[in-house]
Amino acid sequence: MRSENPSGADNQQERPGIEQWIVGFVDGEGCFSISVVRNPGCRLGWQVQHEFSVTQAASSKSALDLLVEEFQCGRVIENPRTGDHHELLLRFSVKRRADLVTTVIPFFEEHPLRTAKLLDFERFVVVLRVMQNGEHLTEAGLRWVARQTELMNRRQRSRYLESSEAIRQPSPTDKETKIWSGPHGDVGSFRAKFLVG
Amino acid sequence: MRSENPSGADNQQERPGIEQWIVGFVDGEGCFSISVVRNPGCRLGWQVQHEFSVTQAASSKSALDLLVEEFQCGRVIENPRTGDHHELLLRFSVKRRADLVTTVIPFFEEHPLRTAKLLDFERFVVVLRVMQNGEHLTEAGLRWVARQTELMNRRQRSRYLESSEAIRQPSPTDKETKIWSGPHGDVGSFRAKFLVG
Repeated sequence: MRSENPSGADNQQERPGIEQWIVGFVDGEGCFSISVVRNPGCRLGWQVQHEFSVTQAASSKSALDLLVEEFQCGRVIENPRTGDHHELLLRFSVKRRADLVTTVIPFFEEHPLRTAKLLDFERFVVVLRVMQNGEHLTEAGLRWVARQTELMNRRQRSRYLESSEAIRQPSPTDKETKIWSGPHGDVGSFRAKFLVG
Repeated sequence: MRSENPSGADNQQERPGIEQWIVGFVDGEGCFSISVVRNPGCRLGWQVQHEFSVTQAASSKSALDLLVEEFQCGRVIENPRTGDHHELLLRFSVKRRADLVTTVIPFFEEHPLRTAKLLDFERFVVVLRVMQNGEHLTEAGLRWVARQTELMNRRQRSRYLESSEAIRQPSPTDKETKIWSGPHGDVGSFRAKFLVG
């Protein structure tokens, strides 16, 4: 957050309570997502991607710019147009693991979410910490992450897990397994395995 | 808000910045809506309805309960189920004009929204103030309110305005004209007409 930047201290005083506004806004529109996607350039042929995002109509771009300014990371990008929306959608997006680990996660640990999105955030944190340990670079670790994404989104089967040959014979027609944050799941056993002790 | 209740002062200190969390949450998920609906019991055969609401999946009910507690008005009700949602949806809803005028509107005037939803709120305030003056009880005033709801939701024609005979020959098959808050519209001329001077 901006408080880490000495030059930002004065500006921050102009927005009292901005941290709680961010928490509320993210409780409403934020998304913590983990994806396992095809990437032939990776040793296992698959890559784990992570993103913290907030989506708004273009008319609220200033609110997304405010997030860039306050977090001092991420950027505002255009969402692909879908048939459901008449207006252009923009997305505040933080994908860099370093930004997530050093800025986004500490912020929401200090200022907890108040909705069920807190559970998504906690799952997100566990996966990121496992990745910090390099566990996802092993076949067993990657398989474990893919299982977590299935728990996080019960409606969607992991493409990675669907194909037992996935690691050795990646196919360019395979789509990514994208796991958007949902209100469900149980990461208790995961936590116990990776974080305790 | 709770600060007006002496007994709530202690609790409020347990939630520092809760006002800004509410602003952010409403920027994300809040809705200010005006509807013109059939009501044969009304003198003109139509009624103007108003609602401030925040919708969440049932798993985030505690966040909606928090709004009830903080605003000290409104209630949490079940949303009708739609095909798009697997989980039960709940809605924090404030419909009483007295609650909107004395509690909700002053809150958001003191703590302004940061997204384009601010424009919806401003339109909502203007309509409510016109109603406080009783303008909507005249045929011309009701027609004016119906025109504003069209401005607020450009995709939906007012059922009230569609029928030139609406006031004199209400039909039970007519549906309500429900105007959910959207990111558009211009209430400049409206403000000029009703609020200036």
